[in-house]
Amino acid sequence: MAPKTKLTYFNGTGLAESIRFLLVYLDREYEDSRFGEEEWAKMKPTTPWGKVPLLEVEGEKSVAWSLAITRYLGREAGLAGANTWEDLRIDEIVYVISDLQSSMASYFHEENEAMKEYLKGPLFSTTIPFYLSRLESQVKENNGFLANGKLSWADVYFAALSDYLNWMNGSKEILVGYPNLQALKAKIFALPKIKEYVAKRPITIELQLKE
Amino acid sequence: MAPKTKLTYFNGTGLAESIRFLLVYLDREYEDSRFGEEEWAKMKPTTPWGKVPLLEVEGEKSVAWSLAITRYLGREAGLAGANTWEDLRIDEIVYVISDLQSSMASYFHEENEAMKEYLKGPLFSTTIPFYLSRLESQVKENNGFLANGKLSWADVYFAALSDYLNWMNGSKEILVGYPNLQALKAKIFALPKIKEYVAKRPITIELQLKE
Repeated sequence: MAPKTKLTYFNGTGLAESIRFLLVYLDREYEDSRFGEEEWAKMKPTTPWGKVPLLEVEGEKSVAWSLAITRYLGREAGLAGANTWEDLRIDEIVYVISDLQSSMASYFHEENEAMKEYLKGPLFSTTIPFYLSRLESQVKENNGFLANGKLSWADVYFAALSDYLNWMNGSKEILVGYPNLQALKAKIFALPKIKEYVAKRPITIELQLKE
Repeated sequence: MAPKTKLTYFNGTGLAESIRFLLVYLDREYEDSRFGEEEWAKMKPTTPWGKVPLLEVEGEKSVAWSLAITRYLGREAGLAGANTWEDLRIDEIVYVISDLQSSMASYFHEENEAMKEYLKGPLFSTTIPFYLSRLESQVKENNGFLANGKLSWADVYFAALSDYLNWMNGSKEILVGYPNLQALKAKIFALPKIKEYVAKRPITIELQLKE
């Protein structure tokens, strides 16, 4: 029997959805523990690094950091590279996507209005189109995938994260104009286990698009 | 014969030093290509993702992203975990350190004065002491290392990056008050190949402390 697994995160896709996608892809039963925004202030000091998602696996100390957990499950799922160089190419793309996400999050979650305005211009005029157009080419040149011309956990990470990116994009589909990225997302969402999960996941705020 | 290797970065330690440390630890000959700040604007658009460091290995497409390259070389050097769970624990710590570094860099490299002032308070009163005190405990509980109670590439990453952190700390030693972290840094700097490299590396600005 597989060890008992528990995932702790806000009630949303955000930085935990790639972990959920990989857990269902692995067909691993897990407890999907979601908490409300209002609980976070109290919970934060009890976490090892002040961060979620947190993964607990029976018999092991609980562990933080979205990308670390995603990479771990991606390897467990057989979605890593065939050698260290292929893993490097996967990681490179994953960091590109993560940098895009964190640039958007710095803007989106900023509470100071002046600061938010300051970040907005360069983000929407430069950072987002730069990364998305280069990622689009990357997929075009890689047989419809992000790295090494084949399916890897980078593709699952990208697809799972894209709904969070939509939310931070003003609740508008961010992949408009990038047909190869759209096709990649659709391909991941069509994987049987993931399709089944997505059909029944909670429709949290970041999944509600305006158009 | 090992393939020809080239590293491209600014003339400084920054995000490239962990790569240099691992290349020398691996005893791999490489070209250490350093460029001046004034060349960056022209170079940036010629890079795949607008980022350095870049690693070129003969016969392979050049690759970006400091942590991706550091992890790759760490694995090549035999400094990864014994299994995927140990690798996860290494990655967790590496992301903690990387988050500390990027929080400091957001402040340090900010050119807008109002914005810089806004970031300064929480960074120095909360973020830095929080992370360093938890990392200090981590080393204490892990037999003098950052993860899994033994040497890993996380330790090399931390030690190599710490001079850059000092610079962003107002050119003052950031590990004062954290004896376990200091001892860890010293241990990495005492590894024969790294010691030899450090003794002859260029004394760039971030290596010049005020006290």
